Amino acid sequence: MDDVVIRTLEKVELHDPILVEGLPGVGNVGKLAADYLRDQLPTRPLAVIYSKFFPPQVYVGEDGVIRLVSNDLSYWKAPAGGKHDLLVLGGDYQGISPEGQYEITERVLDYCQKLGVREVFTLAGFAQGRVVETPRVLGAATNAPRVEMLTKAGVVFSRNDPGGGLIGASGLFLGLGRLFGMEGACLMGETSGYFVDPRSAEAVLKVLQRVLEIKVDLAALEAKAKEIDRIAQKIHEAEQRTSEPSPTPGSAPREDLGYIG
Amino acid sequence: MDDVVIRTLEKVELHDPILVEGLPGVGNVGKLAADYLRDQLPTRPLAVIYSKFFPPQVYVGEDGVIRLVSNDLSYWKAPAGGKHDLLVLGGDYQGISPEGQYEITERVLDYCQKLGVREVFTLAGFAQGRVVETPRVLGAATNAPRVEMLTKAGVVFSRNDPGGGLIGASGLFLGLGRLFGMEGACLMGETSGYFVDPRSAEAVLKVLQRVLEIKVDLAALEAKAKEIDRIAQKIHEAEQRTSEPSPTPGSAPREDLGYIG
Amino acid sequence: MDDVVIRTLEKVELHDPILVEGLPGVGNVGKLAADYLRDQLPTRPLAVIYSKFFPPQVYVGEDGVIRLVSNDLSYWKAPAGGKHDLLVLGGDYQGISPEGQYEITERVLDYCQKLGVREVFTLAGFAQGRVVETPRVLGAATNAPRVEMLTKAGVVFSRNDPGGGLIGASGLFLGLGRLFGMEGACLMGETSGYFVDPRSAEAVLKVLQRVLEIKVDLAALEAKAKEIDRIAQKIHEAEQRTSEPSPTPGSAPREDLGYIG
Amino acid sequence: MDDVVIRTLEKVELHDPILVEGLPGVGNVGKLAADYLRDQLPTRPLAVIYSKFFPPQVYVGEDGVIRLVSNDLSYWKAPAGGKHDLLVLGGDYQGISPEGQYEITERVLDYCQKLGVREVFTLAGFAQGRVVETPRVLGAATNAPRVEMLTKAGVVFSRNDPGGGLIGASGLFLGLGRLFGMEGACLMGETSGYFVDPRSAEAVLKVLQRVLEIKVDLAALEAKAKEIDRIAQKIHEAEQRTSEPSPTPGSAPREDLGYIG
Repeated sequence: MDDVVIRTLEKVELHDPILVEGLPGVGNVGKLAADYLRDQLPTRPLAVIYSKFFPPQVYVGEDGVIRLVSNDLSYWKAPAGGKHDLLVLGGDYQGISPEGQYEITERVLDYCQKLGVREVFTLAGFAQGRVVETPRVLGAATNAPRVEMLTKAGVVFSRNDPGGGLIGASGLFLGLGRLFGMEGACLMGETSGYFVDPRSAEAVLKVLQRVLEIKVDLAALEAKAKEIDRIAQKIHEAEQRTSEPSPTPGSAPREDLGYIG
Repeated sequence: MDDVVIRTLEKVELHDPILVEGLPGVGNVGKLAADYLRDQLPTRPLAVIYSKFFPPQVYVGEDGVIRLVSNDLSYWKAPAGGKHDLLVLGGDYQGISPEGQYEITERVLDYCQKLGVREVFTLAGFAQGRVVETPRVLGAATNAPRVEMLTKAGVVFSRNDPGGGLIGASGLFLGLGRLFGMEGACLMGETSGYFVDPRSAEAVLKVLQRVLEIKVDLAALEAKAKEIDRIAQKIHEAEQRTSEPSPTPGSAPREDLGYIG
Repeated sequence: MDDVVIRTLEKVELHDPILVEGLPGVGNVGKLAADYLRDQLPTRPLAVIYSKFFPPQVYVGEDGVIRLVSNDLSYWKAPAGGKHDLLVLGGDYQGISPEGQYEITERVLDYCQKLGVREVFTLAGFAQGRVVETPRVLGAATNAPRVEMLTKAGVVFSRNDPGGGLIGASGLFLGLGRLFGMEGACLMGETSGYFVDPRSAEAVLKVLQRVLEIKVDLAALEAKAKEIDRIAQKIHEAEQRTSEPSPTPGSAPREDLGYIG
Repeated sequence: MDDVVIRTLEKVELHDPILVEGLPGVGNVGKLAADYLRDQLPTRPLAVIYSKFFPPQVYVGEDGVIRLVSNDLSYWKAPAGGKHDLLVLGGDYQGISPEGQYEITERVLDYCQKLGVREVFTLAGFAQGRVVETPRVLGAATNAPRVEMLTKAGVVFSRNDPGGGLIGASGLFLGLGRLFGMEGACLMGETSGYFVDPRSAEAVLKVLQRVLEIKVDLAALEAKAKEIDRIAQKIHEAEQRTSEPSPTPGSAPREDLGYIG
């Protein structure tokens, strides 16, 4: 079989489209953001991407119906007068081998180039290894003007982060994208790396809104973030209790337990 | 060499054939069921499948004659008036890399499509991690009508199982099969995951008989299942004894040992 | 580059040639036997085989000159009236991945078929996991007549060994060889599996001489075998001493140490 | 995508060019030497090499701009009357799989052959597993005359080192180079294997200068070497102190700590 199979579901003409990529990764930030964007805009499905570089796996829905693992391209047509239509790339997996990552990225970029894409934004998480109360959005871009533009939009360009560079789809879509004549940037939401992190995805989408001049209702994502905050807080409290000396019987801890339960 | 080599042993015309797949996996349930079906129907060999994605290995028979590891397609012609001929796929291994799984499955599906296959049943085990007295048959299908049809045939569609989806040939033959315009379902016999499980294979074949409207004599499989039951029971008893306090000399345990020995 | 590159060093016409394969493996028995055969017959180099499925490595000779790792085909022209010329395949490595094993074997078989090869003998070691004083030669063949013929030549066909079949080049040259219309057999010298074992290689070559009706002077191999016997004996004695209670001062062990030193 | 993509940045005619390779490896000696040579000569960029056999990674510069990992060819035109122009190959990674190493090396050699390269020098480190005060340069070459020539230039050809041969690009560029009709040698600077080792790179470049009859100012490399020496010395002293008995309060160690801090 072809290494990568792209099935087009609908034939469309797009107006100077921008590709937004968000696949599973650190804190699932990129995937959360891209999926949310796809659902809220709302977009329509454009193409399904299968590959032998994904795991040999099908998912089973709650209705008992199976679905082969894939990546998926959706499109959004900007309202009249909008500068750019959008393509959103999401999916179940990144390629599971280095070669697979290159092959899939190259094929998707080739496909997107034919649709007129000249600009790419990749969304990702940046693991800080500690709880991040108010996640900043770190950036990396394909050229200096974009660094400047994103800095104005609130993105942080750090001299040291990410020190080892970007590994995986978020980096490769930019790095290989340049061989297709595309420019772009990666937006990395800070995250602990321990949780799925909708708060970080929200921070990324806030920047993306500003940069793409689109409007996305973030209420549902904020709700999800609060739910995760609540769970994290409970775990944190439980951990603190277990590392504290045993409380005197009858004192405060009983109340705490009630709060947690 | 070609990644996958399919050697046709006999040229046949088949009447609306259905593919039944059963390769090694959890509890060897799928392979046990497919091999038993192939031997009991009885079928005739149709094609041998070699691949560089199998291990570089030959088996040596008791007569000292070698055989390269392979998968194998057999066919069964339904008696006059039957709705469907059958193709049974069995073999020594699934592909040993993810890419190999995709390549082999795709090539076999392509071959089967040319033989007229439009429906696929994949047979597998579902590991419960505990002893299963009376294995249920769980299901997953390519569309809602098949879920309904199989539910009537006694298959259980669980909202939560299998949670991670199906990994390997049993999922891939359905997932990739859809790209070939085929529909179908996976029948998963519950099993502990610790034993080769003919009891679970039997449960799967009972459902398959109903669905395919064929008749298979299950006596030999039932005998094999009882043999395994007996071995499992002995092991279970032996384990219980070792975790019990040492018995008083001369009491019941001596008898037990006699029974086990 | 081509997955496998075969460089022909000399153009030859061979008379009904038989391929003898011996590559590194258990106890290095196959390689020892094939290298010895190549040197003693004597043969002439015919072709060098390079592959990206070998390690990315060069060897450096004592003269400081490098050599890329390879497999090598040598040929031997039988004296007038001889039934078969011979091809001997040896080398530094087997393919280091399963796919690599298939690719290299298939390409070498294809090359050998064009030279007229219809029969293959593969040489290997069979690990017994214990010291083997007088190694037997176990066999596996592509058909029953060869099993019979080899049994008469002293080869042992065991109902149980090798239980898991043959893994690697020795099996694959036979298994894939059949797809090229070749017949043949594997000769496995028993060996402990702990040492490089010229004694086992000698046993294999004694059988091969009989079967191929050739004469090879085994004196140098026997000398090497005795040298290894001597080393193994010393190690054995040293091990026994360390597991014995400390000897009385002034008694025999002092003498032993002198012997070993 | 192509397994290896070579982007030519400038079209040049070179005069009997020699290829000098230095990629990351033991002590990073080869890369340090090649990078230094490239910067000091000075050279101009000729081609960038991308490959799916490199990690799927981009680096982010201090300015926030990304760069896909690559290897890079630079060229140097000898002054009038010079015998050879030079090509210098450096980069971020060697291929990350054995097959990748072969593929990349073969493609770069093919590219260099078209530029007229007939001679290759590969630069590497040779790990001694102990501190090396004055690193020697060990050698391996494609033929005896080169061994002789290099011996006169101060290169050490040891009967035993490197015992296992050369693994990776430094060996492969010579081994595969011969299939392209190229001759050459590997220059291996002795190094501990524990540090990045500019001292060893300096030793390698001193030999290379002599052999290529070029002049490179080694002052900056020597400065770097002294800096590493200083760090290594401090670590060494710190280690010695921790393994010494605790000093009497008020004695010399207080001074030592001051020196180290």
